[in-house]
Amino acid sequence: MQQKIPVAILGATGLVGQRLVQMLDGHPWFDVRVLAASDNSAGKKYGDAAKWHLGSDMPAFAREMVVQPCEPMDGVPLVFSALPSDVAGEIEVNFRKAGAIVSSNASSHRMDADVPLVISEVNPDHLELVRVQQANYHGAIVTNGNCSTIHLALALKPLADAFGLSRVIVTTMQALSGAGYPGVPSLDILDNVVPFIGGEEPKLEKEPRKILGKLEGGRVTDADFKISASCNRVATRDGHLEAVSVELKTKASLDDLRHALAQFRGQPQELRLPTAPEHPIVVRDEQDRPQPRLDRDVEKGMATVVGRLRACSVLDYKFTLLGHNTIRGAAGSTLLNAELLAAKGFVP
Amino acid sequence: MQQKIPVAILGATGLVGQRLVQMLDGHPWFDVRVLAASDNSAGKKYGDAAKWHLGSDMPAFAREMVVQPCEPMDGVPLVFSALPSDVAGEIEVNFRKAGAIVSSNASSHRMDADVPLVISEVNPDHLELVRVQQANYHGAIVTNGNCSTIHLALALKPLADAFGLSRVIVTTMQALSGAGYPGVPSLDILDNVVPFIGGEEPKLEKEPRKILGKLEGGRVTDADFKISASCNRVATRDGHLEAVSVELKTKASLDDLRHALAQFRGQPQELRLPTAPEHPIVVRDEQDRPQPRLDRDVEKGMATVVGRLRACSVLDYKFTLLGHNTIRGAAGSTLLNAELLAAKGFVP
Amino acid sequence: MQQKIPVAILGATGLVGQRLVQMLDGHPWFDVRVLAASDNSAGKKYGDAAKWHLGSDMPAFAREMVVQPCEPMDGVPLVFSALPSDVAGEIEVNFRKAGAIVSSNASSHRMDADVPLVISEVNPDHLELVRVQQANYHGAIVTNGNCSTIHLALALKPLADAFGLSRVIVTTMQALSGAGYPGVPSLDILDNVVPFIGGEEPKLEKEPRKILGKLEGGRVTDADFKISASCNRVATRDGHLEAVSVELKTKASLDDLRHALAQFRGQPQELRLPTAPEHPIVVRDEQDRPQPRLDRDVEKGMATVVGRLRACSVLDYKFTLLGHNTIRGAAGSTLLNAELLAAKGFVP
Amino acid sequence: MQQKIPVAILGATGLVGQRLVQMLDGHPWFDVRVLAASDNSAGKKYGDAAKWHLGSDMPAFAREMVVQPCEPMDGVPLVFSALPSDVAGEIEVNFRKAGAIVSSNASSHRMDADVPLVISEVNPDHLELVRVQQANYHGAIVTNGNCSTIHLALALKPLADAFGLSRVIVTTMQALSGAGYPGVPSLDILDNVVPFIGGEEPKLEKEPRKILGKLEGGRVTDADFKISASCNRVATRDGHLEAVSVELKTKASLDDLRHALAQFRGQPQELRLPTAPEHPIVVRDEQDRPQPRLDRDVEKGMATVVGRLRACSVLDYKFTLLGHNTIRGAAGSTLLNAELLAAKGFVP
Repeated sequence: MQQKIPVAILGATGLVGQRLVQMLDGHPWFDVRVLAASDNSAGKKYGDAAKWHLGSDMPAFAREMVVQPCEPMDGVPLVFSALPSDVAGEIEVNFRKAGAIVSSNASSHRMDADVPLVISEVNPDHLELVRVQQANYHGAIVTNGNCSTIHLALALKPLADAFGLSRVIVTTMQALSGAGYPGVPSLDILDNVVPFIGGEEPKLEKEPRKILGKLEGGRVTDADFKISASCNRVATRDGHLEAVSVELKTKASLDDLRHALAQFRGQPQELRLPTAPEHPIVVRDEQDRPQPRLDRDVEKGMATVVGRLRACSVLDYKFTLLGHNTIRGAAGSTLLNAELLAAKGFVP
Repeated sequence: MQQKIPVAILGATGLVGQRLVQMLDGHPWFDVRVLAASDNSAGKKYGDAAKWHLGSDMPAFAREMVVQPCEPMDGVPLVFSALPSDVAGEIEVNFRKAGAIVSSNASSHRMDADVPLVISEVNPDHLELVRVQQANYHGAIVTNGNCSTIHLALALKPLADAFGLSRVIVTTMQALSGAGYPGVPSLDILDNVVPFIGGEEPKLEKEPRKILGKLEGGRVTDADFKISASCNRVATRDGHLEAVSVELKTKASLDDLRHALAQFRGQPQELRLPTAPEHPIVVRDEQDRPQPRLDRDVEKGMATVVGRLRACSVLDYKFTLLGHNTIRGAAGSTLLNAELLAAKGFVP
Repeated sequence: MQQKIPVAILGATGLVGQRLVQMLDGHPWFDVRVLAASDNSAGKKYGDAAKWHLGSDMPAFAREMVVQPCEPMDGVPLVFSALPSDVAGEIEVNFRKAGAIVSSNASSHRMDADVPLVISEVNPDHLELVRVQQANYHGAIVTNGNCSTIHLALALKPLADAFGLSRVIVTTMQALSGAGYPGVPSLDILDNVVPFIGGEEPKLEKEPRKILGKLEGGRVTDADFKISASCNRVATRDGHLEAVSVELKTKASLDDLRHALAQFRGQPQELRLPTAPEHPIVVRDEQDRPQPRLDRDVEKGMATVVGRLRACSVLDYKFTLLGHNTIRGAAGSTLLNAELLAAKGFVP
Repeated sequence: MQQKIPVAILGATGLVGQRLVQMLDGHPWFDVRVLAASDNSAGKKYGDAAKWHLGSDMPAFAREMVVQPCEPMDGVPLVFSALPSDVAGEIEVNFRKAGAIVSSNASSHRMDADVPLVISEVNPDHLELVRVQQANYHGAIVTNGNCSTIHLALALKPLADAFGLSRVIVTTMQALSGAGYPGVPSLDILDNVVPFIGGEEPKLEKEPRKILGKLEGGRVTDADFKISASCNRVATRDGHLEAVSVELKTKASLDDLRHALAQFRGQPQELRLPTAPEHPIVVRDEQDRPQPRLDRDVEKGMATVVGRLRACSVLDYKFTLLGHNTIRGAAGSTLLNAELLAAKGFVP
């Protein structure tokens, strides 16, 4: 890349938007030209509009930038969307119509037939749908999955490839940051678990099947395995933990599974994308790992950590996985998809 | 009951022992004559030996009692054991040999062929094994299940009876008090989940099958369904939450399941035992219940609360259950078993 | 009391309003006729309008009551106000104008010259200001202090009476429920302390001086001691903890202080008011008490618990106090004031 | 420094020892040759002996090192002690006798007349006591203060220098890691505050007076101001928060105070010691800072963050300070003292 690609961040003041601001600070390929947000924030300096929630300080480049409204703009061919779902749908369409490539974390268009739902290591070939969209709208929208979906789909991918998958049961223990800010009231969660997250189970039961589906003739056929999900909110700041049982189509030993998971690599690793983790899946052999606090920052939050791999007396195998929900589970995947789009020449 | 039955509590200073002290305060049938504990505590006043962990104050009757060693004693036909498993095995045998009926929360003898593993509402008929033991040892040991087992087995019982059970997958989110005191270090659990509890999964996969098994010819044949368990420790004080998927042997509607659970009653309710909950299973229809903080004290902690009853796309149905782990999941079940033993004339 | 007094609760759906509903369930003197709240809730059943936050279930009497708007009503001479301060000011004035006695937890009128700021045990004589108001407005407003103020003023009262007070330094560690619901976002407080609570320090520095002030000639002269406060929010559900240093006007021994605190009684105890704690101040001698979780429910949450009484090398003595913030620190004091008003014949 | 100085870490497996291992990884001046710990650990590989508690992984250099017993060793002129106080006293004396310079975090010798109690920026001149010790014992012990002391003394130093100090009242809210591991049981602190930390208040009332004292004629005369401390344990992982009120000897404006704090620098900054923070005191002007989670890692945990600077109606001024308790409050100060010792030629 000779010259950096100008980019915008929509929904820049929210938790996922802040992660994007953080991860794009000093990015070798992308140059943040626009921070956009709702009318409440537009016109203010980003430093005033955004209550910064991440551990380190707000990047200096962002502090003085004046927040823009979420309207199509010239000279910004690549747009990151961290918009809330209730407004993302229309805004992203506007940007697509104006010719932009939108890498979106919002759920609004994930299930659109011509919108790819992509995890860069898992189904980079689905990006071909960008061409389908560009033919119709000039620009295109690319989405990544829900925060729990991304880590589950990453762990399922090598198993599906090597052994075939028929059934999956997953119970999640999801972190507070998954609900955004202000999100979960402290009185609801201190000394408590909430066994329900609105809209989460349907996403987790559907999205991995599209991600692991097959692109043929310009459309994706869902993978044919079944998923049953139970989603819970627990009192952790970051890092979604998922207890997973899987049934395979062909016989496999525990060692086979471990090997398939640990060896997994994808295009981001081959292409050495700037945000790509060296190991997209990290396997831990201790009996009490992964744990949110100890493992969420592995590979700078870009890996899915799998542990407790063992036989399941009902399906075939079970394991526990952990992934950072606002990095790999959101902003990091949005960014990695954008890097992949740029590397493959999809950004005009 | 004309006259109260003299009872002893072994392991009276621990968390479960304290719950027994609390629940036996003013009990209509039982009179606590002896508080026994390890040599560290023996000889001290209970008020000095036990660091009280429960919300209300230590019952006045216990404060001045001098803690005894855990050795068989005259005039105490009924003994509660809240001993840690590493010492319970031998001590309980000593008491049995001396003729006592031991109602134990310890795991040591749960799987002995002649020791009943009983939840009063679920398998009261297994208490007949007391006669088998008495024939050999003069006294007898009766056990209740592990804290997670009890609530799971309670919820499975009406389903097994009405529809038959073939497979169960359960993921637990267990409270801190389940590990006793000092138990889980705060640095291990604040902003964290630990996806492993030593020895818990094997118990949860085996015990419900004995409890729901069939007593024939003086021995229990395990029920033939399969259980796969994943056990996690979360930052709640009390109340184990369990996400459960079940496969049934016969077709049933959601309404059938709800009805079977909500209508469930057992001998403790028929016999109006002092500690029996009116509803051993409480069904909640809100989408975000049960929750540990809101539901653990229902029926004074003696009920299993079931909610989120819905279809499972992999097995047949799934639901979330919650139960107080040191009351119904431990001390309360030990006590209820003792009440049932007394009501049925098993206590000499 | 022959017949119960009809009462209304304004702001009945909030956290303090819920405590009032809970504490008025089965009250021997008062009969809740009206539950009133904002326009969002008015017209709905209370069971639907209020998300119940307290441990036990919503009282049955309240569930089906239709929430009313906060407008003066006939036949309800006594009104409890748990309104937020931004709307309480005007609404309470409307009720006063209509002839009601308003017992309010809101801060709006606490500093009005003719409105008594009362803790029933501390300054019941200030209720004479009701007569001053009634002469002007027909009805009257009576307020209690801020949640931190009430417990501090209770502990300072016997010291001021016995030894005189000149200076007080207090650092609070306040519970989440003090911020109402949804209140403090979980991401702000998990693994954190927030060393600031908007508006709290000025209240805590001023209110105790009015409460401990002298009523003469129809007005209150503030007590002349100084208070310096630092207020912090910590991750506890209920129970404000306060580290206090005091300088006395006359010499006193530690025993003198302990005695003055432990022996303290007031009119609610003499009159045996239904909600009066037997001991308004409970003194604990253990070196690590009071603690929020262990001591907040003492005397059903109506006491101030004082411990760690010891010399202060800068002022004279220091101690730690703890009190339930939504019971004695809010709803319980509002209710106790109302009982005192009724017992003294102030309610028409 | 041409060649790195060989160093040993005593108590290397504990929380503070682990911080030293982490901070000495790749250190430009010091080369860790020996990791020593109790007999339980001696002989094992460090990777097996130490349960790693810090966020990032255990440094590779330490993993395979075999833990040694805490006995004097040849060729290691500089020794870090992170030993628990109950054993540190004797072991450190043995090392001193053997000629080593011991930079210790333990409290055992802090109050010895010939042992300097040093914060590198505050009283580097006290290191002259090393010469006094060397004359008697060949080696020498240098200590840093308690975790709460260090941050308080850092904040008081510029005030004492500029305005004089007469009285200080401090209330602390201390993090869990201050109690080591396993430390505080989770059942003691979830939804709770413990208003007592054994031995902490006397240290906090005495140590700053020695640190800010005057070295004359080979002994330190304590500074003559008074401190009164109340110490509380709260549910934060790292970062001690302290609410402080001060009385000054000379008049000063808020701006004077702010300036004195923000401009403060010491020898570590002048000498550009490797671990020296650029700003030993960081002043924040937001009304709700410092906060443990947001500010504890400022300057890599080596700064004291001061905020909420404002008038105190009882003494003169008050403020809130925050500091990382295991970095600057322990291991970081032990290391910085060692760097200062090396830079000044005290290490043989």
